[in-house]
Amino acid sequence: MSALRRTLLKGASPSPGTLFGHRGLVSVRGTRVLYQPSTPSLFRPFSSSTSTSATSKTTHSSSNWIKSSTVQLSLGLGLGISLAALYSYSNPHAPSQTETQSPKQSKQSLFTRGDVRSHTTKETGIWVTSNDGVYDITDFVDIHPGGERILLAAGHSIDAFWAIFSLHNSPETKELLESYRIGNLIPADQDPTYNATRDDQSAITSALERLFENDPIRDPLLISRSDRPCNAETPPELLTRDFVTPNNLFFVRNHLPVPEIDVEEYTLEIDAPWVKNPITLTLKDLQRKFEHHDVMTTLQCAGNRRKEMHDAKPVKGLQWTQGAISNAIWTGVLLKDVIEQSIGPVPKEWADKIKHVQFHGAEGYGASIPSHKALDPRGDCLLTFAMNGSPLPKDHGWPVRALVPGHVAARSVKWVTKITLAEDESESHWQQRDYKGFGPSKTLEESDYSTAVSIQEMPVQSCVTVPQPNETVPVVEGRATGIKGFAWSGGGRGIVRVDVSVDGGKTWTDAKLTRPGQEAGKEWAWTHWEASVPVTKEGPVEIVCKAVDTSYNEQPRDMESVYNVRGVLVSAWHRVKAEAVKKAEQENAK
Amino acid sequence: MSALRRTLLKGASPSPGTLFGHRGLVSVRGTRVLYQPSTPSLFRPFSSSTSTSATSKTTHSSSNWIKSSTVQLSLGLGLGISLAALYSYSNPHAPSQTETQSPKQSKQSLFTRGDVRSHTTKETGIWVTSNDGVYDITDFVDIHPGGERILLAAGHSIDAFWAIFSLHNSPETKELLESYRIGNLIPADQDPTYNATRDDQSAITSALERLFENDPIRDPLLISRSDRPCNAETPPELLTRDFVTPNNLFFVRNHLPVPEIDVEEYTLEIDAPWVKNPITLTLKDLQRKFEHHDVMTTLQCAGNRRKEMHDAKPVKGLQWTQGAISNAIWTGVLLKDVIEQSIGPVPKEWADKIKHVQFHGAEGYGASIPSHKALDPRGDCLLTFAMNGSPLPKDHGWPVRALVPGHVAARSVKWVTKITLAEDESESHWQQRDYKGFGPSKTLEESDYSTAVSIQEMPVQSCVTVPQPNETVPVVEGRATGIKGFAWSGGGRGIVRVDVSVDGGKTWTDAKLTRPGQEAGKEWAWTHWEASVPVTKEGPVEIVCKAVDTSYNEQPRDMESVYNVRGVLVSAWHRVKAEAVKKAEQENAK
Repeated sequence: MSALRRTLLKGASPSPGTLFGHRGLVSVRGTRVLYQPSTPSLFRPFSSSTSTSATSKTTHSSSNWIKSSTVQLSLGLGLGISLAALYSYSNPHAPSQTETQSPKQSKQSLFTRGDVRSHTTKETGIWVTSNDGVYDITDFVDIHPGGERILLAAGHSIDAFWAIFSLHNSPETKELLESYRIGNLIPADQDPTYNATRDDQSAITSALERLFENDPIRDPLLISRSDRPCNAETPPELLTRDFVTPNNLFFVRNHLPVPEIDVEEYTLEIDAPWVKNPITLTLKDLQRKFEHHDVMTTLQCAGNRRKEMHDAKPVKGLQWTQGAISNAIWTGVLLKDVIEQSIGPVPKEWADKIKHVQFHGAEGYGASIPSHKALDPRGDCLLTFAMNGSPLPKDHGWPVRALVPGHVAARSVKWVTKITLAEDESESHWQQRDYKGFGPSKTLEESDYSTAVSIQEMPVQSCVTVPQPNETVPVVEGRATGIKGFAWSGGGRGIVRVDVSVDGGKTWTDAKLTRPGQEAGKEWAWTHWEASVPVTKEGPVEIVCKAVDTSYNEQPRDMESVYNVRGVLVSAWHRVKAEAVKKAEQENAK
Repeated sequence: MSALRRTLLKGASPSPGTLFGHRGLVSVRGTRVLYQPSTPSLFRPFSSSTSTSATSKTTHSSSNWIKSSTVQLSLGLGLGISLAALYSYSNPHAPSQTETQSPKQSKQSLFTRGDVRSHTTKETGIWVTSNDGVYDITDFVDIHPGGERILLAAGHSIDAFWAIFSLHNSPETKELLESYRIGNLIPADQDPTYNATRDDQSAITSALERLFENDPIRDPLLISRSDRPCNAETPPELLTRDFVTPNNLFFVRNHLPVPEIDVEEYTLEIDAPWVKNPITLTLKDLQRKFEHHDVMTTLQCAGNRRKEMHDAKPVKGLQWTQGAISNAIWTGVLLKDVIEQSIGPVPKEWADKIKHVQFHGAEGYGASIPSHKALDPRGDCLLTFAMNGSPLPKDHGWPVRALVPGHVAARSVKWVTKITLAEDESESHWQQRDYKGFGPSKTLEESDYSTAVSIQEMPVQSCVTVPQPNETVPVVEGRATGIKGFAWSGGGRGIVRVDVSVDGGKTWTDAKLTRPGQEAGKEWAWTHWEASVPVTKEGPVEIVCKAVDTSYNEQPRDMESVYNVRGVLVSAWHRVKAEAVKKAEQENAK
C-alpha cells in the first residue's frame, strides 16, 4: 500500500493543505452540501440568499444526510479538481484486502442487491455497484474529488450518476474503482436493465433531483441537450435576430449542478506560489476597488456543431447543433488589475516559471489559461459580475465568472472562487482529459491526452441561421436573398470575408458583413452577415458558408478531415439544404 | 487642368514637403541613381562601402546620365510610395493639349519608331511607346514615383520595363499614361513582336542591366523565379536540411532593384504626426543606443506555392513552388524601444488615432503594420542588422531591415530608411493594391482592393519536402518512412499537430514534430516534422500533409476553395505523388 493511500485512508479528515500542496481551501460559505458525516462538524441550516431571480425548485428532505456545512464544502468541493487530476495520473489505490475487506469478502464474493442496499452508512460500510461489480467505497467517501455527492449512490448502482457526471468516463477512474471491489452481484441480480426497474430508479431519480435542486428555471425557448447538468442551446434562427444575445437566450453549458452561493459570504481567493497568505476578496471588494470595464465577447462551446460531425461519423458528447454560441456585453474588472493590485506583479524570480492562471469554480469545475493571456493589457480578461447590464444570471456564474475573450468558453470559468498563478495548467479533468483535439484517424484509445494541446483560442467558424434546413429561400431578380448567419474567430481575430454559395460550394459570393466595430486584434465579438446570391433556377439549393478571419485562416471543407473522437472544434463549411422559390410565388403560397 | 497637376508640372522640383504632406524626405545619401538632370545638382562619385560579402557585378558606364545625387534620391525614391498611392486614387492628369502638345501633335498623330527614338532628352522632349501608343512623358519625369529610372525607357517601348516593375499593371497607372498620349505609331511600326527585335531589345537589355547593377551575386542553388528584380526560392529539399536556413539559401523576394547604400551615411528617420522634428538615427546609433535581441523567425512570401494554385486555375504572379519560406535568427533592436526612446510614447491625444506604423524602403518599397503589433512588448518587432550571426546580406536589407514576426514577409521591409507612426496604412502600391485576399469566384476586375483587408498575420501552412514528386519513399516494416516537411503559422501560433496521409487524405497519421521551443504565443519559427505512415502495398502513393496550429485552425483541403486571382495565401493541403518501394529493393536498385 502506498504511503499516499495510507495517509489518505488513515484519518477521516486529512489536511488537504499539507497533503496536496494547496495552501488554502475554497472559502465559499453557505453552499449547500448533501452529507453530514457521523463525526461532529459545523452544522448550519439551509440558506437561499443568492440574489438571482430564478427560484430554486427545492423539496427539502428532512433526512439527516442533507445538511449544510462550511467544513464539508471545503472538503467536498475545494479539493475536487486537484484530486481528480491526482487520481488520473497516479493510482496509489492498489487493492488491499487486509485493510478494507473482511475475511469473508474477496473479489470472488457474491452479494445480492439487498446486501448492497443495506450498506449506506459509515457504520455499516458504504457499498455501490457498477455493472455486476460490488464496491466498498467507505474509505473513499472523504477523499472523493466530487465531495459527498458520491453518497447519493450509496446502496445503489453508481452507473446512473456516472452517466451524468461524465468526467468519470476514463480508464483511470474505472481502474481506481476496481481497487475498491469486494466481489460481484449474484447471477440472479446481474440484470443490466436493473437500473430501469422501479425501486432503484426512483431512489436514483430522487437523489439526482436533490443534486440539481439549485438549478434555475430556464427559458423554454432554449433547446435542451441535457437536463442534468443543464446544457441548452440558443435556437439557431435567434442567433442572428439580435447582435447581443439576450441573457435568457444565451446558451447554457454546465458541467455540474449550479452551486448555491450566499453572495454576502462569497469570497474570491488569489494565490501564487510566492504568496504566503492568499488574498481574499469579497464581491464588494471586486466591485469597489477596481475599475469597471465592458467587453463585448462571443463565447462558443468547443463542441458546438457536434451533431453535424456525429452525423458524418459518430462521436461522443452533447449533440449541439449550431447554437452553443452567443454574444454578450460583460461588465467586470480586469483580471490583470485584480491579480497585480492584490498580490503585486509576478516577481522576477518567478517570471519565467509562471505560465498559467488557474480558475477554480465553486461547483468543482476548473480550468486554466496561459498567463500571457491573463496578464496581457490587451487580453481583456475580466472577472465579470454583470451581463448585458443585469447581474450575472445564476446559470452564467453569479456572482463572479472569469471571462476569457477569444478562447473556448470552457476557460471562462463560472462561479469562480479561487484564482491561482501557477507553473502548470489546471489539474482538472476538463483541462487535462477533455477539450483537446486529436487527428482524424485516432480512436478514443489512441487519443493521448498527455501530449495533446489544450484548446484555448478557437478556429474560425461560421453558420447559416436563415434559412433553416428544408425552409424556402426567396428568389428576387435572379438572386437567392435574405440568407443570414454569423461568423466568429478566436484570439481577437476579426472576420475579413464570408463566402456564401448556393450550389454546394462551386461558386461563391461575398456576404455583407456587420462587424462588431472592435479594435484590431481585439475583435472578441462575432460578425453577422447577410447574403444575396445569384441562382440560376428554382428548386433545391445547397447553401454553404465559410468565413475567413484576419489571419486569412478559413474553415476546412469537410467533417471527415477535422473529425476527432470527442467531436470538438467542428468548423467545417456549414451546409443547409433549402428550396429556392420566387418571391411572388412564395407570397402566394402564404 | 487640376490645381495639383498644375503645381506638379510647373516647376522641375516641386517641394514634396508641402505638396504631399510629408515633412521629411528619405535621407539616404550615396544611393546610386540613374539620371542627372540638366540643371546642376550635387555630384558625387560612386561609392561601394556596404560591408556585405556579395560582390556587385558593376560595369560602370561613363555615360553622364548615371550619376549619384542626394537631391535626386530625395526626389526619385523618397517620393515614390506616397505618389504611387496618390496616382492610384486620384487622377488629376486630365489630357491637356494646350499645355503639353504642340498643334501638330494630337491623339490622332502618327509617328515612326525613329521619331520616338529621337526624343530622349528634356530639350527634345522624352517620348516612349506602349503597344502602338506614343506618349510624351517629359513633364512626368520629375514626378515619376519610381524616380528617374523611367528615363531608361526614353525613346523605347515602356512595356519591357512594366513587365518587370509589375506595380504598373493597374488600370489607374494605364489611365495615367493615357493622359500623356500624343498619338500612335504608323501602321508599319505597329508590330507587337517589335520588342523582340534586335535594336530595341539590346538597348532595353542594357538599360535593365544598369538598373540592377547593384544586385549581389546569389547562390546558384537558389531557384530563380525572376532575375530582375531578383526572386529566388530555397530548393524544397533544403528547407528541412537545416532548422535555421543558411543566409545564402534564404529565399529572396525583391520588388525593385537592390539599392546601394553607403552605410557610413545611412540614416533612419522616425516620424509621427505630433513630432515637429523627425528623429534621425545612424546605424551606429541603432546598434549602440538600444538593447540587442535575437529572434528566430520564419518569413514566408504571401505568394508561396502559387504555382500549385496556378496549375489548378491560372493566377497572376511569380510561380513559386514551396520555397518562398525560410527561417533565420535575426539580431537587432526592438522597434518599440527605438520608437519610444526616440520620439517618446504615443501622446494621449493621439492614442486612439495612431493605428499603423509605416516602413519606407530605400529602393522605393513601402508597407505598414498595425501599431498594436509594432508597440506590443510581446510583438518582437525588430530593426535588424544581422542575420544568423552575420551582417544582414545585401539581398535581405543591409544595413537595416524591419522584422515583423508572424506576419507576411512583405511587411518586413528591407533597406528601411524611414518609420512613420500614422493614422492610416502605408499608401504604397504593395499595401493598397497588392497583398490582399479575395473570394474564390472573383475576377481581377471584380476584386475591390479598397475594401479588402491587407494580409498581415499568415494562415497555417505545411509542405512535404521529402520525397519530392516522382521520387521513391522507402517502405520499412509496412510503413512509408522518412517523409519530411515543415509547418508554420502566423501570429506566433505554434503547431499542435501535422497530419500525414499516404492515401490522398483518407487516413491520417500524426507526424513527429520538431518545434522551435519558443514561448507560447511567440512561436515565430516553423516546426519541422517527420512521419512514418502505414502503407498497405508498394507502388504509387499520394502523400498529403496538413497542419493544425494552436488556435486549432487547419489548412483547407482544395486549391479551388481558397483560389484568388492574385494567387496569394496558398495554404491548401500539400500533395506529393511518389512511389512506395520496399527498402531492400530500393537499395538493390542502387
